[in-house]
Amino acid sequence: MHLDELVSRIGEVDARVAEAARKEIDGKTKPQGSLGRIEAIAVRLASIYGEVAFDTMPRAVVVLAADHGVARRGVSAYPSAVTAQMVHNFAAGGAAVNVLARQMAARTVIVDMGVAGEHRWPPSVRRCALGAGTEDLAAGPAMSEAQALEAIGTGAAIVAELVRDGCRLMLTGEMGIGNSTAGAALTAAFTGRGAAEVTGRGTGVADAALARKIEVVAHALARHAPSAERPLATLAALGGFEIAGLVGVVLGAAAERIPVVLDGFIAGAAALAAVALAPRARAFLFAGHRSAERGHDAALASLGLEPILDLGLRLGEGSGALLALPVLDAAARILREMASFASAGVSGPSG
Amino acid sequence: MHLDELVSRIGEVDARVAEAARKEIDGKTKPQGSLGRIEAIAVRLASIYGEVAFDTMPRAVVVLAADHGVARRGVSAYPSAVTAQMVHNFAAGGAAVNVLARQMAARTVIVDMGVAGEHRWPPSVRRCALGAGTEDLAAGPAMSEAQALEAIGTGAAIVAELVRDGCRLMLTGEMGIGNSTAGAALTAAFTGRGAAEVTGRGTGVADAALARKIEVVAHALARHAPSAERPLATLAALGGFEIAGLVGVVLGAAAERIPVVLDGFIAGAAALAAVALAPRARAFLFAGHRSAERGHDAALASLGLEPILDLGLRLGEGSGALLALPVLDAAARILREMASFASAGVSGPSG
Repeated sequence: MHLDELVSRIGEVDARVAEAARKEIDGKTKPQGSLGRIEAIAVRLASIYGEVAFDTMPRAVVVLAADHGVARRGVSAYPSAVTAQMVHNFAAGGAAVNVLARQMAARTVIVDMGVAGEHRWPPSVRRCALGAGTEDLAAGPAMSEAQALEAIGTGAAIVAELVRDGCRLMLTGEMGIGNSTAGAALTAAFTGRGAAEVTGRGTGVADAALARKIEVVAHALARHAPSAERPLATLAALGGFEIAGLVGVVLGAAAERIPVVLDGFIAGAAALAAVALAPRARAFLFAGHRSAERGHDAALASLGLEPILDLGLRLGEGSGALLALPVLDAAARILREMASFASAGVSGPSG
Repeated sequence: MHLDELVSRIGEVDARVAEAARKEIDGKTKPQGSLGRIEAIAVRLASIYGEVAFDTMPRAVVVLAADHGVARRGVSAYPSAVTAQMVHNFAAGGAAVNVLARQMAARTVIVDMGVAGEHRWPPSVRRCALGAGTEDLAAGPAMSEAQALEAIGTGAAIVAELVRDGCRLMLTGEMGIGNSTAGAALTAAFTGRGAAEVTGRGTGVADAALARKIEVVAHALARHAPSAERPLATLAALGGFEIAGLVGVVLGAAAERIPVVLDGFIAGAAALAAVALAPRARAFLFAGHRSAERGHDAALASLGLEPILDLGLRLGEGSGALLALPVLDAAARILREMASFASAGVSGPSG
């Protein structure tokens, strides 16, 4: 995959269509602005799709899974084996992401980006592993730049295939014991915040493990001296195979001119890397929700995204992106289906 | 309708089922608490339905429409004729509530509770008018207590019929030019706030009309000296036919042991009256969203409800209740469909 080529395919969203969508909404039978953020979301979606009467169906949540060398340092409440167990759970349809994807009529695409151990995955799990998990990011780079590029290419290729298959919207999902440590390191690197500001409890570690996790992140930042100016090197040093894959999902969707709904903290870290690589990708992003994970706010602020939901979620998997999806669907339907003052014979304001 | 009888039918929610639902959720394949408010919503819904494996389908949004004598004082940006025009728009399926009800698979029940003028409604509009709109609440009581009781009875009877027909969840909707003035007066009366604190721009009045609206509300409060201790008299003095009908929807749903998702500011005012009449009804309420209308926060605080969405909506019709519905559906599905650690063979926390 040539990253430059992928980045060069990302264009601007269509400002003229945005204007047409705004005009269309203002003619609908409701007081101006009374649908609040639904209206702004409708306008942004129209500018991405390049048409006012767009559809957000079909869509897919891409759930990338991988293990993390840094998990050996006791930064998670769960053992690394849970990554593989959860991939089996995804394949069996029993996880939160499956339940919510069924509800929201999204396809679920499960990808092994580098789960540790030997596995007999069911056929629904795509085998794109770059290794048996990353190296320990506190001891050296998590992966090589070549691996980061390969993971980005995998994410982008999956999106391209789904788009060829008709998908019109992507949602990010992930699973990886230890990945909130990688997410915190990336968030710190790309936002300039300190380790303590962006490192949270992840799956729910207690105080001692949180202190250790902050120390690990601080140590990794000191060791690698990452920079937002060298996004690929930073991603390779501090990321994960699934996080680099999500960078590819974001860049791939932007290249295909379709919106991406980000899930929470890990997705935010991936989006920071993606936008550092390709600033134009930012216009294709929606933040599904504000995660309860410390550090997500810093990522959202840096990305300039206001989350759609704020429900105290901190699960990942794509759950918060899926839960926000009906709001985007509503925006699409309001534009397509709602009557205008003229067509419905409704009077406008008196004044 | 005997109000006492309706109120006496409202029972307590089931604390033991709540506990069972909490235990069920804690066994699901996710870190404890990681689904945030979805978990608390699931527990509350279970306690209302009295079962852990409940369904939120089928459901209906009850859209009550009526006119307001106070509209003659220039408190709205739109003429009263818009109430009837919008009822026709609802019947034709072109309004925001129709679009969102289709998306969320909710039935739309449209009710003329007292729209001014002579109308040839299509058959889908229920004719329950108590008059050609209320009297001017700033000049005298908006309606008699007998009318308020009748409207409550109508709302409760519609719910009872829908429940017999299989509905398992109600959403409130309304339309009535001038009703944000009535809603502000009721919110002030039931929360003890001043007119200026709870009176907003409604459909979007400019500064001069807003000042007039605040004066009208203050005048009505001074004239009627309403009290939360005499809720029926307060509702009659300051309410609207559709607002009193919504009080009936809330009480009727609570009596039938099904949840009610409130829309915004007008629904909040109705809920304040309902809870003053029957404090047990509170446990059956969900606030769909935080309205942009000034005064809604006061109602939510008094009701002790945290809104599910916060999208700057101020349309009414039921739009904000419908948009929140997928979150309740998700709570139901998580309880019913998600795998447990035991069933999926996933390890628990290491510690």
